[in-house]
Amino acid sequence: MIGMSEVILSPSIMCADLVNLEQDIHQLESLGLTTLHIDVIDGKFSPSMPLGLETIKRMREVTDMDFDIHMMTTDNEFFIQEMLKIGVQNITFHVETSLHLDHEVNLIKQTGTKVSVALNPATSLSILDYLLPELDQVCLMLINPGFATNKGEKQIPYAQQKISALAQLIKQKGLKTKIQVDGRVSLDTIANLVAAGADNLVLGSTSLFAKGATLAENRQKVLDAIAEGKAAK
Amino acid sequence: MIGMSEVILSPSIMCADLVNLEQDIHQLESLGLTTLHIDVIDGKFSPSMPLGLETIKRMREVTDMDFDIHMMTTDNEFFIQEMLKIGVQNITFHVETSLHLDHEVNLIKQTGTKVSVALNPATSLSILDYLLPELDQVCLMLINPGFATNKGEKQIPYAQQKISALAQLIKQKGLKTKIQVDGRVSLDTIANLVAAGADNLVLGSTSLFAKGATLAENRQKVLDAIAEGKAAK
Amino acid sequence: MIGMSEVILSPSIMCADLVNLEQDIHQLESLGLTTLHIDVIDGKFSPSMPLGLETIKRMREVTDMDFDIHMMTTDNEFFIQEMLKIGVQNITFHVETSLHLDHEVNLIKQTGTKVSVALNPATSLSILDYLLPELDQVCLMLINPGFATNKGEKQIPYAQQKISALAQLIKQKGLKTKIQVDGRVSLDTIANLVAAGADNLVLGSTSLFAKGATLAENRQKVLDAIAEGKAAK
Amino acid sequence: MIGMSEVILSPSIMCADLVNLEQDIHQLESLGLTTLHIDVIDGKFSPSMPLGLETIKRMREVTDMDFDIHMMTTDNEFFIQEMLKIGVQNITFHVETSLHLDHEVNLIKQTGTKVSVALNPATSLSILDYLLPELDQVCLMLINPGFATNKGEKQIPYAQQKISALAQLIKQKGLKTKIQVDGRVSLDTIANLVAAGADNLVLGSTSLFAKGATLAENRQKVLDAIAEGKAAK
Amino acid sequence: MIGMSEVILSPSIMCADLVNLEQDIHQLESLGLTTLHIDVIDGKFSPSMPLGLETIKRMREVTDMDFDIHMMTTDNEFFIQEMLKIGVQNITFHVETSLHLDHEVNLIKQTGTKVSVALNPATSLSILDYLLPELDQVCLMLINPGFATNKGEKQIPYAQQKISALAQLIKQKGLKTKIQVDGRVSLDTIANLVAAGADNLVLGSTSLFAKGATLAENRQKVLDAIAEGKAAK
Amino acid sequence: MIGMSEVILSPSIMCADLVNLEQDIHQLESLGLTTLHIDVIDGKFSPSMPLGLETIKRMREVTDMDFDIHMMTTDNEFFIQEMLKIGVQNITFHVETSLHLDHEVNLIKQTGTKVSVALNPATSLSILDYLLPELDQVCLMLINPGFATNKGEKQIPYAQQKISALAQLIKQKGLKTKIQVDGRVSLDTIANLVAAGADNLVLGSTSLFAKGATLAENRQKVLDAIAEGKAAK
Repeated sequence: MIGMSEVILSPSIMCADLVNLEQDIHQLESLGLTTLHIDVIDGKFSPSMPLGLETIKRMREVTDMDFDIHMMTTDNEFFIQEMLKIGVQNITFHVETSLHLDHEVNLIKQTGTKVSVALNPATSLSILDYLLPELDQVCLMLINPGFATNKGEKQIPYAQQKISALAQLIKQKGLKTKIQVDGRVSLDTIANLVAAGADNLVLGSTSLFAKGATLAENRQKVLDAIAEGKAAK
Repeated sequence: MIGMSEVILSPSIMCADLVNLEQDIHQLESLGLTTLHIDVIDGKFSPSMPLGLETIKRMREVTDMDFDIHMMTTDNEFFIQEMLKIGVQNITFHVETSLHLDHEVNLIKQTGTKVSVALNPATSLSILDYLLPELDQVCLMLINPGFATNKGEKQIPYAQQKISALAQLIKQKGLKTKIQVDGRVSLDTIANLVAAGADNLVLGSTSLFAKGATLAENRQKVLDAIAEGKAAK
Repeated sequence: MIGMSEVILSPSIMCADLVNLEQDIHQLESLGLTTLHIDVIDGKFSPSMPLGLETIKRMREVTDMDFDIHMMTTDNEFFIQEMLKIGVQNITFHVETSLHLDHEVNLIKQTGTKVSVALNPATSLSILDYLLPELDQVCLMLINPGFATNKGEKQIPYAQQKISALAQLIKQKGLKTKIQVDGRVSLDTIANLVAAGADNLVLGSTSLFAKGATLAENRQKVLDAIAEGKAAK
Repeated sequence: MIGMSEVILSPSIMCADLVNLEQDIHQLESLGLTTLHIDVIDGKFSPSMPLGLETIKRMREVTDMDFDIHMMTTDNEFFIQEMLKIGVQNITFHVETSLHLDHEVNLIKQTGTKVSVALNPATSLSILDYLLPELDQVCLMLINPGFATNKGEKQIPYAQQKISALAQLIKQKGLKTKIQVDGRVSLDTIANLVAAGADNLVLGSTSLFAKGATLAENRQKVLDAIAEGKAAK
Repeated sequence: MIGMSEVILSPSIMCADLVNLEQDIHQLESLGLTTLHIDVIDGKFSPSMPLGLETIKRMREVTDMDFDIHMMTTDNEFFIQEMLKIGVQNITFHVETSLHLDHEVNLIKQTGTKVSVALNPATSLSILDYLLPELDQVCLMLINPGFATNKGEKQIPYAQQKISALAQLIKQKGLKTKIQVDGRVSLDTIANLVAAGADNLVLGSTSLFAKGATLAENRQKVLDAIAEGKAAK
Repeated sequence: MIGMSEVILSPSIMCADLVNLEQDIHQLESLGLTTLHIDVIDGKFSPSMPLGLETIKRMREVTDMDFDIHMMTTDNEFFIQEMLKIGVQNITFHVETSLHLDHEVNLIKQTGTKVSVALNPATSLSILDYLLPELDQVCLMLINPGFATNKGEKQIPYAQQKISALAQLIKQKGLKTKIQVDGRVSLDTIANLVAAGADNLVLGSTSLFAKGATLAENRQKVLDAIAEGKAAK
């Protein structure tokens, strides 16, 4: 079990019951999970606007879990400021919609909040040439963000290749930046993703919330897959 | 009590407990309320994005109340389509962001859903010169929409004047279009608003959800104020 | 037949065969028609971009017919300049997308080209409060422009009412501004539209190009309907 | 001379020497002028960006004249906030680019700064149906704003008609709202503009700064023209 | 002659007679050409909107040639859907305006239509780091797209260098992705472009449609230049 | 002192007295400075609009200094055209807002004006893969541009690393492209920046205009720091 704690489990709030959030959050807490992954989409970045800011504010009042915010937005500065007001532990925003990337990273950092940037599937790692040392984490999207209802959309075939390339880059520069992976992170693929270098898994309907088993059972399967991936490293 | 039923009470979902929506919705049902007023703001129309689409979808599954959607959005057609997919009973969108106003009204009407347009406080009624007969309802904003956190923002001083002017217009044309009023509709102002012609009241923290009394008690105060307003007509 | 010539027939190029334009234009000429109505949509004003600028340039080289351009665009100034370069006889643009309305009207007027503004169905005539005397023509849209593929879309029920109101306004001010009507102008409705005050008819698939008769036959039906409308005035 | 003081002279800073502003401002002060009219254009409202915010900040430090700001901008809220930080006496913004008109008016009013809205030439007065009592002043544009380099652009022919209509509206409602006129306000036209109801004249190259006479001489001519206009009322 | 067939000739529809398209398309067919290159520009990506969607729909009805669509658009998803409805064989869109690049590639691929992305002259090949294996073709722009009327605009001096770099990248990865080149592909430069690695040539006024020779003669010159380029490889 | 002249001093006009520009410009001239660095921000690229176009036009009339324009704009083509009309010696625009990068570079070059592109702090040098040989200069931003009022904002920690990487790239390609650095270029950091490869220093409040010394004294300190940096190369 040693070393296992390094891979963080980030259950997605989108798999909770949205009309009974308090109860579902407490259930996640009782499983020993400490991070809540929350998607914020503005309807313009992608044709989707799943959750609202007032909902997040209210969730903040009923739990001490770390809020790991994944902003899929075009007006990043507005949403960063809203997140800082609410009080969250990590803010991830997309490089593709950021004009003043270094500025927005520092806006978050100077408050003591962890900062992460997300890259769409096809986005080159060259975007990180100078910024990598400033980041706590990089989020690699393994599906196209905000098209979750597009049932046909599969995980990108180049997922492992991209994770490995980023892991190598981080190692070469002697950094401790974490790699989060998001998109169809399933019980079947976790071992490979971890082996490739993933440190943080966004968990949804194909892993922690997979049907046919309890959350506790699925949590154990996730941990087993992580162990398998670590062993294969 | 006769004739009282004509004024519809539209409690705002924003006053419910957003992490325990199912329970709060059932409480409203138990009071005999049949309409739920739901604000959809896109963060671009106003600097606010209170609630998400997935939350609305999930609410749809736990109640048969009429969903009265107030869209404060810039890409109206996208949000209209999302609302139609969810299945709602009335869609209100803003004339100020509508390029193809008649088209969007008909997009809603042809599905059998009721259609309403909202006017910002300063917007002239001349926008309704040709469209009024096509509408089920007009929503007059009595505060600037989406700036609710702006505590200093008061109800517009020309509220009654505008309601009266619209009521007269509707009467002149022999129409049955309803007038909804939204923004600081309080126990103190309801009588006057109803006397001026309001048919539908969006109820929030200054009326149905006013502190210091139960929902049932506040509901009765609202009904009393409506009766007072009707009498003064 | 006297006075009939006052109502202008504006056949829409969209009803011609787009891969054999030269031949179809010559056929219209041979019918004695002198105006060609050309829609320019930018894909942003409406989800449609039927025809291109190079196509219009090339048409300009093969006919001396008057080009009556109906711009449904958001960047009006760009398209006005392109039209002026091509050499057209009338430019109509939409008031809904014009920030500097008086400026754009004068941009066209100062070149000697006729100028017209188009109003979407629901747009109030109050937009013309000061501009009317500066215009050669006003184009009233009787359907929502650029949604032609939306087969269910019918002519607005308030068509005659709006035409009459504009005709009266023009008369009151002692002006000679012409009224063009566009959208499902059919053999069945022409008489009423003309009776209400229409001076210029955009003719498409429900009139001049109606199936089951030759262009010449349909042209005669149009003229008959106009005569009927004039008589009823 | 009694009553003359009611018409305010608003010399445009654009006619000063922009590389010697301090000296020119002091010259205006020495003439007894107390208001400085300052155009702020963002390059997007119109193709023009004459002056910058830092320049205005620095001017604020060298004079106590009232700053009368005419914003020709699309992101009004940003520029309103910048003006409030600088400390100005009147802020005018355009109704055509204002989505939350009542909100922006109140944003200014609540700071004690005077508030005015500007109307482009063709904009209908119906935009003021409900807002007029909330305003200190209305600015009627007599040319299209931000196209000053367009030498051919003349004052609109409907200038007097529009001023008269607004003056009558203000009188009918028993208000004290002032009417500012802006655009080719020349020595030849001032008498007519004042007679029609103008209370505040933006003075530029065709009046106060007209070539061939000193500022003091031109100032006298302006006062004479105002007196003539007042007499003709 | 063996191997020659690998280089595809893509004659540009912009060089056909736009008022006699049917006849010109049949002439291209009679030359044995099987692909038609069609530019779709939205007036916003570039100041140009040469051809319309209805024209393309109508062309689709009169020929079985492969339609090779080059979209120069900002709202890619709208135009991709329109192209799929018409039925085309290859869709190329620009990486510079694509936020969800992988998503748009798959949107096209899942219909069985070939997919290609275009790169503006200065765009780095790093944009292809992960996407290259998913593409049927990459289109390298050798002039700035949509400024064709800018007569002074020459082919970029780094054309061959960029083609070679891409060809090497494709080879290194063991892929079969094709390289299309577009922009002043002339009889003088074809040999060099092919030698550098071009597989598909967009042919316009400086090659297939060059004045002073018949289409058949020019076609032969193109084939000769290709052969020369292949020999020099 | 030999070789020192290679590093160009670019004093920022923002440090001059904006209400007495003529006098301050002449003071810079009297120091032997020949270049004036002028920021043009449009309020949209960054929340700042320091200086206006008319101010620049007027400055052009009172000095023969080289105008080194740093555009921080979104509509680059409009501002490039305005700068060309005024007559400037170098135009720098940002790659992050340029869709047609090669086109805009050539628009400037063909007039004989020097051309430079600016890169935001986090922007990868891969953007220059093909364009570098076309440029006279590259401007590396060492702070986030347009947030100068953000007093807490420090020079990026990766400044020297990025300058060195660019200097090496230029050397490898055998080019003579100059490297300009902009942002907190202070007396303390100049030696290191020059040692890393900087050829052109934008000088502001932390160097030439540092308080506590005369311009002439500061100029000497800058030259000394440059000499120190050159020696350390």
